[in-house]
Amino acid sequence: MKKKILSGMRPSGKLHLGHLFGALNNWIKLQDEYKCFYMVADWHALTTDYANTSEIEENVREMVIDWLASGLDPKKSVIFRQSEITEHAELFLLLGMATPLGWLLRCPTYKEQLREIENKDLHTFGFLGYPVLQAADILLYKANSVPVGEDQLPHLELTREICRRFNNFYGEIFPEPQPILTKSARVPGIDARKMSKSYGNAIALSEEPESIKKKVQQMFTDPKKMRANDPGHPEGCVVFAFHQIYNPDHKTLEDCCKKGQSGCVDCKRALTKMLIDALEPLREKRMKISKDKKLVNDILEDGRIKAGKEASATMKEVRKSVFKARVAEKSNR
Amino acid sequence: MKKKILSGMRPSGKLHLGHLFGALNNWIKLQDEYKCFYMVADWHALTTDYANTSEIEENVREMVIDWLASGLDPKKSVIFRQSEITEHAELFLLLGMATPLGWLLRCPTYKEQLREIENKDLHTFGFLGYPVLQAADILLYKANSVPVGEDQLPHLELTREICRRFNNFYGEIFPEPQPILTKSARVPGIDARKMSKSYGNAIALSEEPESIKKKVQQMFTDPKKMRANDPGHPEGCVVFAFHQIYNPDHKTLEDCCKKGQSGCVDCKRALTKMLIDALEPLREKRMKISKDKKLVNDILEDGRIKAGKEASATMKEVRKSVFKARVAEKSNR
Repeated sequence: MKKKILSGMRPSGKLHLGHLFGALNNWIKLQDEYKCFYMVADWHALTTDYANTSEIEENVREMVIDWLASGLDPKKSVIFRQSEITEHAELFLLLGMATPLGWLLRCPTYKEQLREIENKDLHTFGFLGYPVLQAADILLYKANSVPVGEDQLPHLELTREICRRFNNFYGEIFPEPQPILTKSARVPGIDARKMSKSYGNAIALSEEPESIKKKVQQMFTDPKKMRANDPGHPEGCVVFAFHQIYNPDHKTLEDCCKKGQSGCVDCKRALTKMLIDALEPLREKRMKISKDKKLVNDILEDGRIKAGKEASATMKEVRKSVFKARVAEKSNR
Repeated sequence: MKKKILSGMRPSGKLHLGHLFGALNNWIKLQDEYKCFYMVADWHALTTDYANTSEIEENVREMVIDWLASGLDPKKSVIFRQSEITEHAELFLLLGMATPLGWLLRCPTYKEQLREIENKDLHTFGFLGYPVLQAADILLYKANSVPVGEDQLPHLELTREICRRFNNFYGEIFPEPQPILTKSARVPGIDARKMSKSYGNAIALSEEPESIKKKVQQMFTDPKKMRANDPGHPEGCVVFAFHQIYNPDHKTLEDCCKKGQSGCVDCKRALTKMLIDALEPLREKRMKISKDKKLVNDILEDGRIKAGKEASATMKEVRKSVFKARVAEKSNR
């Protein structure tokens, strides 16, 4: 039997290249080797945005369209929406009972986010419990592995600790999920900071050719290279970062740039073309998917049923273990 | 339409007179005037006892038998088990997202219990979230009122605040539950402390006559009344506290005691008889109920269906409000 993977993204709307190279491309690769559960983490969205939920529905839809356009395949993977599987909430509650408060308060990412995110109210019970909900997401499907970037390792470690503690009290129910450390290309935004929708520096998977052209023109380059034949420093250049991804011959370009044999204008023009070409098939697939008004709902409904079966089986086992001699399985009402 | 009430007890096993006079007698009275939801709070039991759940099943059964023997009527009231209505967990999760951490950390009973309960690990996420789960219990049934003792008023106030905050973000879904301040007789344990199973000073509703006799003999009386004809001080006397409940003529007794006209031995003998007589019908009813092996399960199953319908209706509304344009109602899987 294939090993299982769970991963998820918050519904932040249309995805950008940061999502593609940071996670999505890996998800797509993992589909053949593993049984994959890919989750629209709409309850997680509430941990930071409970006060404004008006865009969640639209964001869910746009994100799933991008997943499909990029190559997530509902025939291979279970694509579902967290809030439609209420077992996530039940397991969250049960795991929380045995989770020491100190583990959550001392979680490094918790303290970091409290410090750094200033425009949102994070001083809630829900935000503190974020890692418990994440543990519930993973354990509910008895996922053996979780694809993570290095920055998410502390959270997965917390999941593993919660898992061990639960197994210790109630019996070996959950496998301890292992990290699959993904090699993800770091994609800078056009201003050289991390690509992020909230920074306004992102290139969407669905970006139109005209808009791609404009954004590439705005990309930060080496400030010391004033003229085309000045020698350049590709290592800090946003345009070159994208060439590394899209241009198979970027080594040659690197040399030319350093020697002052190529100018930024040409370099940007070449990148514009490569980016437009690379995103063209996604845009087309996107259009097709968008036209079918039912498709996304049908896929999520199919995922709901498949994920629901697994979740329901796990929770039967969990309830039995927590309430030892639990008498009978009850029928659905 | 009748107004709705929700109340619950943790499954602590066989109930004692403290439960009867502290809550249960009130519950029984409220059955005619209100539509009552009486909940076996088995998830709440986990907030303090997650590490040892071996007795919960048996405790649930014994407690429900005592409820029925005392006069809770499944034809009038919905008697159900919290953990069988998973919507409690879902609403708990959603309410938690918008609940400020400070409200929970500063809750006076929270700090008090952390200080005073020493033999249990209360430093968990679940114990901190206890008032959120309580709010979910109440709001899920849109209860208009909650019977509370004065000591529980801060918790209900927290429920009301959580309710207002949720309504404020997502629309007027929940009525703000009002307290029904119950006049409950304070029943001392046989050692004059608060009656509590954990103090070993309780008289169970199912106490056998022989055991009642022994426990009354052990009851603390006025230490200054050494001989029968010494004047006594009924106000601090455990035996007299019970006379106040069971003896219609306790005023006369009070007089006689103060004047040294009656002795403790007689006083205890009279109480023993009254207690045995008062508990006799409960014991008989209890025996009958216990013999029917299916009855408790059937009643809880019936309650599960009735409570489940209300819970399911509320959550449909809640989900729609939280995720605004939530598209379609999904069928059960």
